[in-house]
Amino acid sequence: MSERYEIRVAGSGGQGVILAAVIIGQAAALMEEGLNSVQTQAYGPEARGGASKSEVVIARGEIDYPKATKPNLQVILTQKAADEYAGDTARGGTIILDDTFVQKDPDVEANIFRLPIVKTARDVIGREIVTNMVALGAVARILEVDGQMKSESIKNTILASVPKGSEELNTKAFEEGYKLMKEKK
Amino acid sequence: MSERYEIRVAGSGGQGVILAAVIIGQAAALMEEGLNSVQTQAYGPEARGGASKSEVVIARGEIDYPKATKPNLQVILTQKAADEYAGDTARGGTIILDDTFVQKDPDVEANIFRLPIVKTARDVIGREIVTNMVALGAVARILEVDGQMKSESIKNTILASVPKGSEELNTKAFEEGYKLMKEKK
Repeated sequence: MSERYEIRVAGSGGQGVILAAVIIGQAAALMEEGLNSVQTQAYGPEARGGASKSEVVIARGEIDYPKATKPNLQVILTQKAADEYAGDTARGGTIILDDTFVQKDPDVEANIFRLPIVKTARDVIGREIVTNMVALGAVARILEVDGQMKSESIKNTILASVPKGSEELNTKAFEEGYKLMKEKK
Repeated sequence: MSERYEIRVAGSGGQGVILAAVIIGQAAALMEEGLNSVQTQAYGPEARGGASKSEVVIARGEIDYPKATKPNLQVILTQKAADEYAGDTARGGTIILDDTFVQKDPDVEANIFRLPIVKTARDVIGREIVTNMVALGAVARILEVDGQMKSESIKNTILASVPKGSEELNTKAFEEGYKLMKEKK
């Protein structure tokens, strides 16, 4: 894996982007992965009313600078987030877009995958609240293909993080997201 | 207020320290407060099995370095967290300790307040899961006295962050924590 890998999850307030990023950060630090990670969110007057974003930096070594400046992987769940953040993607990086809320493909050089994340949460799982877990499934597939970490590490961290009784709902959402991405890459 | 104010919430896995720090960061950025904030957590091999910590930096201006190096305010919910982190407190800073899980006062120069945070969650509210909300009440009082932000800003952010139906439980926990701290400062 590369020395430093940056991930950003961006969307609107209620989409659970913080929890998604927290789970990626925790998964990276599992014994089996042995990585370091730093997870951040910034808030401020300029962010208000804008898109909400949450970031994770993972690395085998120490992480000096904790923010994502050129994300290797972005998950973008609203048009506003696409407009604001897609342009930052690292050269050769990946963007996963939600096909309900992002209408216009960003005009950037990146591997862009348009997936029915919100639709799957709504229609397959029946609960839009698991949008972030569907997104995590797609993320897990990319991280696996990119050689960053095993998809199981993210799944196990989800199991340990969600409220008791909701494990099945959340892992089903995760698996659907994983499948969506696997069909493409 | 000072140019930069650092807050750290430290405890063990299930105590909700991340949500507490996220809420402080979001409250700082409310229109009425107009501050910038950055909220972070770091994970890694050396953190595994150790104390869990979550940090927020707030400032009127831009925040260059997002981690807390000399926290002005620390909330410490376990003995392990006390042993690891109490020594970092800024000169003239404040430590709020939970009196159930922290048995030994740290030997550091700081304003130390020993409060029944976990006991209040358990016995007054009847739900240990709101430990973090009781802690936030105590934090809100300190931030108010220190001139950083209004306690209402944290309370309103809690209302906007917790699951529907749990608002009363969580704000009651917040208010009990605020009272605990107000009796002392």
